[in-house]
Order: sequence, then C-alpha cells, then structure tokens
Amino acid sequence: MTDMRAPVTMLGLGAMGRALAAALVDAGRDVTVWNRTPGKAGALVERGAVEAAGVRDAVSAGGPVVVCLYDHASVRETLDPVAAELRGRAVVNLTTTTPDEARELAKWADGHGIDYLDGAIMATPPMIGAPGAQILYSGSREVFDGHRALFEVWAACVYDGADAGTASLFDLAILAGMYPLFAGFLQGAATVRAAGGTAAEFAERAAPFLAAMTGSFSHIARTVDGGDYGDPVQSLDWTVAALDAIGRATREQGVEPVPTDMVGALVRAQTEAGRGAEDFYRIVEGMAGDRK
Amino acid sequence: MTDMRAPVTMLGLGAMGRALAAALVDAGRDVTVWNRTPGKAGALVERGAVEAAGVRDAVSAGGPVVVCLYDHASVRETLDPVAAELRGRAVVNLTTTTPDEARELAKWADGHGIDYLDGAIMATPPMIGAPGAQILYSGSREVFDGHRALFEVWAACVYDGADAGTASLFDLAILAGMYPLFAGFLQGAATVRAAGGTAAEFAERAAPFLAAMTGSFSHIARTVDGGDYGDPVQSLDWTVAALDAIGRATREQGVEPVPTDMVGALVRAQTEAGRGAEDFYRIVEGMAGDRK
Repeated sequence: MTDMRAPVTMLGLGAMGRALAAALVDAGRDVTVWNRTPGKAGALVERGAVEAAGVRDAVSAGGPVVVCLYDHASVRETLDPVAAELRGRAVVNLTTTTPDEARELAKWADGHGIDYLDGAIMATPPMIGAPGAQILYSGSREVFDGHRALFEVWAACVYDGADAGTASLFDLAILAGMYPLFAGFLQGAATVRAAGGTAAEFAERAAPFLAAMTGSFSHIARTVDGGDYGDPVQSLDWTVAALDAIGRATREQGVEPVPTDMVGALVRAQTEAGRGAEDFYRIVEGMAGDRK
Repeated sequence: MTDMRAPVTMLGLGAMGRALAAALVDAGRDVTVWNRTPGKAGALVERGAVEAAGVRDAVSAGGPVVVCLYDHASVRETLDPVAAELRGRAVVNLTTTTPDEARELAKWADGHGIDYLDGAIMATPPMIGAPGAQILYSGSREVFDGHRALFEVWAACVYDGADAGTASLFDLAILAGMYPLFAGFLQGAATVRAAGGTAAEFAERAAPFLAAMTGSFSHIARTVDGGDYGDPVQSLDWTVAALDAIGRATREQGVEPVPTDMVGALVRAQTEAGRGAEDFYRIVEGMAGDRK
C-alpha cells in the first residue's frame, strides 16, 4: 500500500500541472509545487499545497518528483542543476515529448542513478481525476508499481513496457488521429454554419457517425499490416470524386476545405502514380515514403 | 403500405448501385437495372433483376427511378434524354452531389414535372441493408413518404426537409470529418509500424480514444456557435507545441506527418495573427476566412 500522506513534488504549473497537483491535494497528499513563473500556485496553496521558491527546495520535500513542463528542453534545463539531489529518487515525466526525447531523458536519468518513468497523458486538464482520462506509462517498472496509487488519482493507467519511448509513441500516434478529426469536424461545422445551420445541430449528427467510423479501424489496420491494397472497399479513384464533391460543397459556402484538400493531395499522389484502382488506405504508404 | 412487388428502376451499377439493387432484389422487388458500361449486372440478373439495354427501356418498367451514378454531370446526361418519360414519376437521386448541384437537379426536375428526392448515403456498399447504415433525404416529402418502405430496405432513413440540398450538405459536412480522421489514423499507424509495432495493436488503442473524443463535439460546437474563443480548454499556443511534438515523433520514424502538419498550418495562421492565447477551435474561423 502506498502511504497517501507521503510527500510528492510537482514541477510545472501550466493548466495540466495545476490539474494534476489539485487532484493530489484533494486526495490528501502532501504536495510541494514549483513553477518557473510565479503566481500560478495561489489556488493550490489555499487548498493545502506548499509552494517552493526554487527547484532545489521543491525536490528536498522528498518522495517522487512529477514533472509537467512545456517541452523536452525545459525538463533538462530544470532537472540538470538538481541531478545530484535526485540520485536514488523517482522522476515521473509527464511533459509531452517525442519517443526519442523520452529515451534521451531516461538515459540521462540512468547516468545520474535516477529512476525514470515516462508518462503520456491522454486527457485534457478538466478530465484529470474524472472517468475517461487515461495515462500511458513506460520506463521503470519499479516506479510504476511503487506509485500506482498516486497515478490512479489522476486517471486510468497503463504500463507500456521498459522502453521509456513507448508511452509517447502511442500517445502521439493517437493524437495524430485526434487533431485532423477535430479540424475536419470544424470544416464541416463551418460549412453547415455558412449554410444557415448551427454547429450544435451538426455536432449532434456528426458525433455518432464519426464515433461509429472508428469501428472500421481494425479492418483498415488488417489491410495496412497485410500490405495488400488490391481489393478495395473504396478505391482511390472513387475517393478523388468524393473529396472533390466535399471540396466543391465547402467552397460553395465560402469555406476553405483545408482538411479535406490535405487528404485529396495524399490521394492524388497515389492516383497519379497509377494506383487509382487500389484501396484508399494506401495513402498510408505515401506518408511512409512509398517504400512498399 | 407500399406494394413490395411494385417495380423499381436502378440506374448506375457501381459498387454502391449494385449493393442497393441487390438489397431490393433480396427484398422481393421487381428491379430493372441499367449501367452505361455493360457487364456489371450479371450477379443481379442471376438473383432475379432484369437488365435493360438502355435508359429508356429501364425507366419504362414503371415505378420510382433510383439514380446512383458517378457524379452530377452524369446524372444530367443520363436523365435529360428521358425527361418526357419521367413526367409525373418519382426520381430518387443517390449520386454524390453538392447541395447546389442537388438544388439544380431539383429545379430541372420541377421544370419537367418530375418529383425529385435527393438522398445522401452515409455508409459503404457492404453496409447497405445492415445495421449502422443511414441515408439522409431531402426534397419531395411525397416521394419520401410514398417510398419509405423501399428506403428502409437499404438503411435507417432521415427526412431533412424540402430543400433538396440539405441532405448533401449534412452528408458532405460529416464526411469532411471522416476523411481527415482516417488520414490522421493512418499517420499514427504508419508511425507505430515504423517503430516496430503493428497497425492492429495501434487500432485497438486508438479506436476507443478517438470514439470518445467525438463526445467533445457538443462543447466545441457551443464555442463555435457562441463565437467566443477567449476561455480556452486548449490554447492555440499550446497546440503549436503539441503538434510540433507529434511532427517530430512522426519524422523520427521516417513518416511524413501530412495530416498533423495541415492542422499545424491552420493553428499557426491564428498564432501569427496574435491569437495564441485563444482556443484551438478558433481554426474554424480561419477556414471561414476570419471574417469574425
């Protein structure tokens, strides 16, 4: 059992850092917080957190050190000066990094005798502590097992193995689906709005359909893993016509169809290479440099 | 009650047209089919459909005429020569068209005394007749009500009002979400594959997360309809950093992040205009020409 009164240090109080720290304070942990720019800790201190004046002070509180900063460079800048103090301690890095950056940090930590666990948060700040939030972890199994009760305060948690880069890899790959989904949804919302409808009525129609479309991912994945695009559900040629119709309808309403034109460019690169009769999903090979 | 033995004509036997015709044959309807290029009707004729040699022959079978051709231009080309024969008859156009194209066809039909209903199919051909398929209709209410039993053979059906363009508008707006979703999912799959994983394991992780993300559409829509982007869940500045991390992680694996770079360009257009502290969803105004 983890002692829920045990201390924990939180470095970084952006919107996500504040949400993580608040959840720990509410769960009764002794939380010491620090942020480069002052003035972010007010509400947390009112709820019972202790604000440290510097990173050295913050980590001297003992317990695991949770890091949620702007980017990879700011993690190194912040931790380098206190590397000696962190020897034998657990560092949990929830900053958004690439897999290679996470591996680089794990190597740096290893060189200083620090136990490193990388985490990737699949949630927005308001989702922390609420159902639906998930955090992926990879790196030190010992740190994951030793502080699991702490992690469960924030979100459902998954351990993805000893390679510190794996959590980031899956996180960023999944977010690569999310942002284009949002951009495409917003293209549709702009089109409906320009035609006199509301984004709200559009959302009501689009959400169940697009949620259902994720049901085809397993079929798409089998096609991609198999590498045979010769028996299309929807051919590249047909997709050109569909995307042209979407583009025309969007422009008819004075909206620039940037998201679907992006897909159109990927599709045309395939049809122009003479693959129009193959499956639409073949655009994946275009992004991978058409080495296949 | 619709007489299920009543005749119906199906013009166009692409993958979708064949699926629609097959569902009607299986439901016991007298189906006459025609396709510009011969050789597509074999399996349908075996199951009981009648193949007509020309459009005039096909429509002389009586009953509603269902059209599922390549595009708007091919609909006009096909129907113009038989406009006189179609007077007083119902034409149901399921060809993918823009809203303005659908309105133009409705006007053409009106000029020839033809009852016109436009339909937009929200399904792939294998989904026709199976749960989950939906077809939106707009235009003649009389045609919709009179042939509803026929339509229900294919899919769940929704009537979107007398404006023939509305069904296409919603259809193409929703598909504007689907194609970027698929492209982004494929970027993620390519990245995981290049790192030694499989698209299948990625799909298993990505599908529930991205399906859940459609739950935020109603909140996004309220923000867009309200037009106030000043209280961001996720700021444009923060999104720049997130998209940069995704881009770096994707390139680290030798994959070109075309879908997320597209979102990055929309986001940067906003931050460069000095709106970095506003909500990410403000990219919708960029697509709409930033008139707001």
